Amino acid sequence: MTRARTAAPASVTPVAWVDGVVRILDQTRLPDEEAYLECVSAADVAAAIRSMAVRGAPVLGIAAAMGVALAAARSTARRPEALLRELEREGSRLVATRPTAVNIAWGVGRVLAAVRGPGSVDELRRAALVEAERIAIEDERACRAIGTLGAELVPSGANVLTHCNTGMLCTAGRGTALGVIYAAHEAGARPHVWVDETRPVLQGSRLTAWELQRAGVPMTLVPDTAAGHLMASGKVDLVLVGADRIAANGDVANKIGTYQLAVLARYHRIPFYVAAPTSTIDLSTPTGVEIRIEERDPAEVTSPRGVRFAPEGTPAVNPAFDVTPGPMVSAIVTEQGVVRPPYRAGLRAAVRRAAAPVPPSAS
Amino acid sequence: MTRARTAAPASVTPVAWVDGVVRILDQTRLPDEEAYLECVSAADVAAAIRSMAVRGAPVLGIAAAMGVALAAARSTARRPEALLRELEREGSRLVATRPTAVNIAWGVGRVLAAVRGPGSVDELRRAALVEAERIAIEDERACRAIGTLGAELVPSGANVLTHCNTGMLCTAGRGTALGVIYAAHEAGARPHVWVDETRPVLQGSRLTAWELQRAGVPMTLVPDTAAGHLMASGKVDLVLVGADRIAANGDVANKIGTYQLAVLARYHRIPFYVAAPTSTIDLSTPTGVEIRIEERDPAEVTSPRGVRFAPEGTPAVNPAFDVTPGPMVSAIVTEQGVVRPPYRAGLRAAVRRAAAPVPPSAS
Repeated sequence: MTRARTAAPASVTPVAWVDGVVRILDQTRLPDEEAYLECVSAADVAAAIRSMAVRGAPVLGIAAAMGVALAAARSTARRPEALLRELEREGSRLVATRPTAVNIAWGVGRVLAAVRGPGSVDELRRAALVEAERIAIEDERACRAIGTLGAELVPSGANVLTHCNTGMLCTAGRGTALGVIYAAHEAGARPHVWVDETRPVLQGSRLTAWELQRAGVPMTLVPDTAAGHLMASGKVDLVLVGADRIAANGDVANKIGTYQLAVLARYHRIPFYVAAPTSTIDLSTPTGVEIRIEERDPAEVTSPRGVRFAPEGTPAVNPAFDVTPGPMVSAIVTEQGVVRPPYRAGLRAAVRRAAAPVPPSAS
Repeated sequence: MTRARTAAPASVTPVAWVDGVVRILDQTRLPDEEAYLECVSAADVAAAIRSMAVRGAPVLGIAAAMGVALAAARSTARRPEALLRELEREGSRLVATRPTAVNIAWGVGRVLAAVRGPGSVDELRRAALVEAERIAIEDERACRAIGTLGAELVPSGANVLTHCNTGMLCTAGRGTALGVIYAAHEAGARPHVWVDETRPVLQGSRLTAWELQRAGVPMTLVPDTAAGHLMASGKVDLVLVGADRIAANGDVANKIGTYQLAVLARYHRIPFYVAAPTSTIDLSTPTGVEIRIEERDPAEVTSPRGVRFAPEGTPAVNPAFDVTPGPMVSAIVTEQGVVRPPYRAGLRAAVRRAAAPVPPSAS
């Protein structure tokens, strides 16, 4: 894995297949510099996922899929079965990096399914890459659809509170929750965004603030501690967040701090919306109780970005996600439509529509 | 104002009158080093309050009172009226430093009242210092009483969530909310404390974590974003915080983030207690609506401790406090007793008892 630096690009591409390597924008170094990791193996991609150089459910699915395609491209296997076994091993390694985001397993699964088809080793190698690229193209389209559908939920001049980063940095398109905001902004709805800084990893301060300002969307950064105060002061019209995994019953795993925003929104009678592609819906997980919450290094809490705040040796907990019960979510915006509670049937239908072959007229 | 460094003291004295200067522990430099500011004028004390070198309602009252006593000691006034006018000016300057904490005005008011008594300029100078020292002694006693009364609200083995710093660093004694925890700890109740890091100024990470570990009280630091998740997981038995101003109806102004903890506690049916001396009760403020919320420098949000997290030029808001409505507070623990809602009569009675002359048998 080597590092290459480029000048600020006009648009953001968090992960891309470039000349036989997977190029990943190192988000741990934003907003200070735009540096890229050049991953030459699935292990490199796994390391980039683990360090959160690349993060956010949709793009994690793309990165993991490209990781498997990379393993295929570099494989010396001579027979399709050997190639498949090797890719299954690499895929498992990728899935193990972060347990909560479902898109990793979903992306790996799609590429492995492509490799299970008929063909020579060379044909299967190409099939892996084609499938990984297809996931990225579909995600870009999904973001566009989510944006269009979600923008209708954003009243003119609305103050939108968001959490974490759900934009260009975590999708192949304009984003999920931020995709909605970009669409509302472009449609002339003039939204203003309250950006939660999102401790401990500060995706709000570092990434969302960076993205929204590049895009010219009016925003104000707020400490996570001020969300309730803003709501009580009548300064929040809706809350809009992404998701890392949505269970079959509509329970939503998302960045730590999301659940308490949902409780606060409910108390203040403010709509609380989740925007996510159907690839984030995991029908095999019945409810949020079954979602495993990743615990990350306590140093992210005690020493953010390497700067020690707490005394040496201070014990800390660092759950990366929490679960918001479906009934607290006003609606889930997917590329297949806006789903309202109770969620079970609506989510199942959305996933079914996403899996259906696209009719020729719509392609 | 000069700086003197000392080795770690066995107990913490955030503010003290030492050889004709006001010595203030510079809390902005904790936990990295224990450095002291030597204030030689009321203006020095005002600067230390503004920079949050000294912070926390009770000790702000003491620091401000000592600031007026310092002005008295250094005054060249020859007549009592001239001295009083000078001290009133210095007092106004101290009161203007931070608008939300009521103890500053209260402490200044007490010293000025002492200077309004009969006597020569020299006698009045001494009276000012005696009154400032008396405030510190009373605060130490109040902390002890709050600890004893509050400890009865802490069940054995309780997980207590606290916010900001309410201990030895912000009182002349063991603290308000932390005073309760210290008392429960010493009584063998084995409390474990979840310490909210308390963005943006990180009083939890820097100060409370430092204090509790010095005192050997079991604690775990948590990002502010994890409070709701901990409550939903059944890991919080009660919330215990301090106050910067309590209105006559029981509305509580306290560190930003307190209000949302109260909403979360209510939703999860967890008791939410406030611990504060009667000096923090402001009967002249009818409700929380009349409490002015201090807005601090956005750089505390974008660049905590001078380390820039957000992109250059990111707009941010930084309200230092919020208001929790009285009905959301399960009880207010004062040195004059535990007051329960509705608060109006109980708070008035507690303030009246505090102002009553101490009977000889109790002194």
